[in-house]
Amino acid sequence: MTKTAAIIGGGVIGGGWAARFLLNGWDVRVFDPDPEAARKIGEVLDNARRSYPGLMDRGVPREGRLSFHPTMSDAVAGAIWIQESVPERLELKQKVYQALQAECDPQAVIGSSTSGFKPSELQSCATRPEQVLVCHPFNPVYLLPLVEVVGTDKNSEDLHTQAADILTSLGMHPLRVRKEIDAHIADRFLEAVWREALWLITDGIATTEEIDNAIRYGFGLRWAQMGLFETYRVAGGEAGMRHFMAQFGPALKWPWTKLMDVPEFTEDLVDMISDQSDAQSGRHSIRDLERIRDTNLVGILRALKAQDWGAGALLNAAEQDPPPVDPTDLVETVRRVVPLDWTDYNGHMNEARYLQAFGDATDRFMEIIGCDAQYIATGGSYFTAETHIRHVDEVHAGHEITVRTYCALGAGKKMQLFHQMFEGDRLLATGEHLLIHVDLQTRKSSPPGDAVANALGAIADQHAKLTPPTGMGRAVGQR
Amino acid sequence: MTKTAAIIGGGVIGGGWAARFLLNGWDVRVFDPDPEAARKIGEVLDNARRSYPGLMDRGVPREGRLSFHPTMSDAVAGAIWIQESVPERLELKQKVYQALQAECDPQAVIGSSTSGFKPSELQSCATRPEQVLVCHPFNPVYLLPLVEVVGTDKNSEDLHTQAADILTSLGMHPLRVRKEIDAHIADRFLEAVWREALWLITDGIATTEEIDNAIRYGFGLRWAQMGLFETYRVAGGEAGMRHFMAQFGPALKWPWTKLMDVPEFTEDLVDMISDQSDAQSGRHSIRDLERIRDTNLVGILRALKAQDWGAGALLNAAEQDPPPVDPTDLVETVRRVVPLDWTDYNGHMNEARYLQAFGDATDRFMEIIGCDAQYIATGGSYFTAETHIRHVDEVHAGHEITVRTYCALGAGKKMQLFHQMFEGDRLLATGEHLLIHVDLQTRKSSPPGDAVANALGAIADQHAKLTPPTGMGRAVGQR
Repeated sequence: MTKTAAIIGGGVIGGGWAARFLLNGWDVRVFDPDPEAARKIGEVLDNARRSYPGLMDRGVPREGRLSFHPTMSDAVAGAIWIQESVPERLELKQKVYQALQAECDPQAVIGSSTSGFKPSELQSCATRPEQVLVCHPFNPVYLLPLVEVVGTDKNSEDLHTQAADILTSLGMHPLRVRKEIDAHIADRFLEAVWREALWLITDGIATTEEIDNAIRYGFGLRWAQMGLFETYRVAGGEAGMRHFMAQFGPALKWPWTKLMDVPEFTEDLVDMISDQSDAQSGRHSIRDLERIRDTNLVGILRALKAQDWGAGALLNAAEQDPPPVDPTDLVETVRRVVPLDWTDYNGHMNEARYLQAFGDATDRFMEIIGCDAQYIATGGSYFTAETHIRHVDEVHAGHEITVRTYCALGAGKKMQLFHQMFEGDRLLATGEHLLIHVDLQTRKSSPPGDAVANALGAIADQHAKLTPPTGMGRAVGQR
Repeated sequence: MTKTAAIIGGGVIGGGWAARFLLNGWDVRVFDPDPEAARKIGEVLDNARRSYPGLMDRGVPREGRLSFHPTMSDAVAGAIWIQESVPERLELKQKVYQALQAECDPQAVIGSSTSGFKPSELQSCATRPEQVLVCHPFNPVYLLPLVEVVGTDKNSEDLHTQAADILTSLGMHPLRVRKEIDAHIADRFLEAVWREALWLITDGIATTEEIDNAIRYGFGLRWAQMGLFETYRVAGGEAGMRHFMAQFGPALKWPWTKLMDVPEFTEDLVDMISDQSDAQSGRHSIRDLERIRDTNLVGILRALKAQDWGAGALLNAAEQDPPPVDPTDLVETVRRVVPLDWTDYNGHMNEARYLQAFGDATDRFMEIIGCDAQYIATGGSYFTAETHIRHVDEVHAGHEITVRTYCALGAGKKMQLFHQMFEGDRLLATGEHLLIHVDLQTRKSSPPGDAVANALGAIADQHAKLTPPTGMGRAVGQR
């Protein structure tokens, strides 16, 4: 049966929760007195529909129903999860809880998105305190999995289990905070960094942009995949966490931040952290962790490279110019090392990445005949109509591959290319591709511009003098 | 001409610098009195060779020559960059600079990897202070682009330009720090977070693992692509940075961290930050920034998903079970939404991602016939030998696609599949694939196990009763 969530308070956070539930197949009932609420939630939901469902590889739940309700009592009808995301004023939250609890299912979880209040403060406003938990998410709620779950001894273990199960089913990570504390966990770090950043700007050390670059070109990349302690465990090397701490312990007394109120660095604290770090990461050797870290970083860097953003934009800017072309011979259209994110768990290049390399070869060939970004901006390009790949041999991450391209046909709207992929002299695969020139407005076939047609024709004429590579023109299974 | 760098002090940081230079085509000359230096640098270099060259899409520089030298004076011969990464003791660094500067090119950059010392402290140890800059990198140096460059008024602008040009040519980001300060910029944040983390552990609020999860499932993902200020600019919405600051300014007086020594939150500071944020990000609207952020996050999350690590492992755990199979009809082998990282800048699915979807369809079909992870672990699997794709129509990110699979042949070592990809009833592409069963030890063809052979044969028999889909058995260009 379809489950129902009530969203009390829209906006960016409430809207993000609504999207998380809806796109996981829940019906969502919203109460927000803001006359703009439907528009605001709609905008968040547009962003979420664009990004979230594509994260799932094995099927997508049918989106639930979204409805807006004029009163809280109407909104909470049938809801087994009620998420409160109203502004951070305790007297307002008190009114909300009392109105909610007059009507809602006493078994439902009431989660609060509060970033600052402790659960005991919220519970003191409630008719049934045992029903209320802090469930603090992170923006954008539909993409980031973290939810800090904080309760008090008024909440039962059953309620915690119920909350954790539901959050997990939404693809989120319920992080149960052991004791309530102002700002929970993550926001304590964010507040510390914010304070330090305000000092750096006040003191004229760096601008906002420089501070952001210090984050996203360095430790931000590390923290997307390992946190503070696992990163330091790796940095400490085989000597381990204790060694790392011994090295950096004294810095606590140095003016490395203006935030100087530090805990006592006792042997007990060192033991506690070393033991916790062993429990967390001890199943991996440091060498394994280094490789896991590097593989993750390569995936992240290449994802950013595809968007030409952040650290990925730096990589694009550092690309070399490709070699000059000899039109009387096969054209070298790719020379690259197989990246870690192109391989399976055994380190072999994945099936689809052969086509990616051939697609890159085609792009480079198009560039050579003048069908480059500037030409494409004028409204024409070549689209692949057909592809035939023959897999001949395997190749591993870290090995250099080249693609050499034979132009079998280049006339009218058609271009036919035959790519051969090698590691050294070893043939790995061939790719035969029929491309059609397309008008990007109409999306229909069209003749290329004269300059492109002439450059393509010239290479096709030269290649007609070469012996055609073997393997062209075959159907699947044909020798 | 090949350029030469001298690396003074090996270890993880010096080794990382050595790898960065070598893999960008520089010759590298190392001095390190540690008898284990060659082994240690070799290990870093192995990691770097595995991960770094594959980041480049348009050609790879030829790796430079690595040599080890018994004295500093020998190591610096011919070097135009000298990187000092010796232990953090000022009297040791003093000896090193004096020995280096007796022999090295006075025009060379001497960069120090120091995380704690200010350049004025280092320069006070040097014979030619004008040659010495802090060039502080981040581990792993061969993957993370950030280098904090800090000088004093003893350094010329020419030296800064020379250093920035070289670092940029290595794919790094030289972040020029405006004034020297203890711990430069990034390590001030790391130290603040470290201090806060020590409090959380001391006070029993969270373990190392919980703290790491609070980072890598939440703000760590944000900071891999946007820093603190750009993230908050987006969170502030159309109201902008000033609105965001007004909202969180009062928190500076609240106990949201134990680090309470805060700058005065004046109008001037708010103006300065708002203006800097406009200069940094003002060319993008908030709506654009939201979409850039989400697209980056999708790429990062999917990169982590492929490694089954961190936030990506959570996504894998939340995958649904695929639907049951009706063996008398075409098999639904894929139902998914086209993810943002599968598309080009126009939002159309990329050529290679059609094959990725067909590859996923093949994997699912293999699973259905019992060639699943457990079977593969026993040493057999199917490898794709040939593929023929026909592109019929386009599809955009965010749209749902399905693949329905016809088994054309399933006997002996061979399996032939014909996938049809649809959006609703609209045919997008077909994929015809010949697969061969392989012994994973010998990498040669072999018969499948009985259970797999029988399950495959049963589906092939059923499908033989269906009308074969049109488009099979064709060579490229054949109607």
